[in-house]
Amino acid sequence: MALLDDALIAHLGVVAGAHLVVLPTAFGVDPAGPDDGGTLYLHGSVAAGWLAPALEHDVCVTVTELEGLVLARTGFHHSMNYRSAVVIGRPRRVTDQGERRRALDLIVDHMVPGRSATLRPPTRRELAATVVIALPLAEASMKQREGGATLEPGDLELDGWAGLVPVRRVASAPVTEDYVTDEVPELVLRRAAELGRV
Amino acid sequence: MALLDDALIAHLGVVAGAHLVVLPTAFGVDPAGPDDGGTLYLHGSVAAGWLAPALEHDVCVTVTELEGLVLARTGFHHSMNYRSAVVIGRPRRVTDQGERRRALDLIVDHMVPGRSATLRPPTRRELAATVVIALPLAEASMKQREGGATLEPGDLELDGWAGLVPVRRVASAPVTEDYVTDEVPELVLRRAAELGRV
Repeated sequence: MALLDDALIAHLGVVAGAHLVVLPTAFGVDPAGPDDGGTLYLHGSVAAGWLAPALEHDVCVTVTELEGLVLARTGFHHSMNYRSAVVIGRPRRVTDQGERRRALDLIVDHMVPGRSATLRPPTRRELAATVVIALPLAEASMKQREGGATLEPGDLELDGWAGLVPVRRVASAPVTEDYVTDEVPELVLRRAAELGRV
Repeated sequence: MALLDDALIAHLGVVAGAHLVVLPTAFGVDPAGPDDGGTLYLHGSVAAGWLAPALEHDVCVTVTELEGLVLARTGFHHSMNYRSAVVIGRPRRVTDQGERRRALDLIVDHMVPGRSATLRPPTRRELAATVVIALPLAEASMKQREGGATLEPGDLELDGWAGLVPVRRVASAPVTEDYVTDEVPELVLRRAAELGRV
């Protein structure tokens, strides 16, 4: 699903206590994961405490890429072009250590493909501090709006401009931390250039 | 709240029947609106049918601007820089015709400031087809991550690169619809240039 490759963040809706909360979060995708249709992985901090109770209810994960402002001749037909995926389901808490490791690698690699293999493995302490949850991708429902402004017959007789303002995400040059002497890795340079083309 | 000016879409979490759903949506802001702290406005189609039942429960509206990929020396400290606002509350259905008109103008003007004044007013049929809801901005909780990768004492002894890949949204040149003979309005050109600087 190209949208899930292109997008960097998801919005997770969970029931937390008496409230529904929607939070931005990183994610990872395993098209060959153990869940129906492949697996969407999210992670959270054990200390934050809100992810574990959320496992008792269905959650909704929505990923959206905004692609343009649609400026019609009428306010009514102003809109946006976008792609979105909505995944609703009861999350599975990932407990198998191998799958947890793999899920965390996928979340890192979603940011920069290939990066996890260049890092030291997570420690036991780091793994213990992290909740990993999985959702089946089979349930994903996709929605998309593309193209120009909706035009009703009467709108042709209106005056005024109508059109589209395309928007996209770009990256700028990677900024190296002060304490680092290594050059920016090729993987990171490639990813920054690629984000500029999405 | 600068974030709400900069962001173009919100994610609305609602309870719809037995499910929690998170959907991307346009929004408008009136800092001097009638609700506590000012008003956040959303709109939806009467025909779509999901917005009206959602009024019976609290909803959550989350606005997020992604600002960078944080690439630490450890997978555990990989993160993202972002700003987000979370507004939770019982939505008020806007029924006053003057406020409805103003809210719809604000949603259009959020896309392109000043544009609503250049369009014909909404018709009665258009107004009747639209649900407008309001939320108080006083309840907005802001969250932000900025700066470099979290560094633990031991990480200084690790090898490898760490740094930030800044990301931002840009707009490209407006695309005029085939049936339009007017030049691209100054307002739209200015907005496209401004989006490129956010």
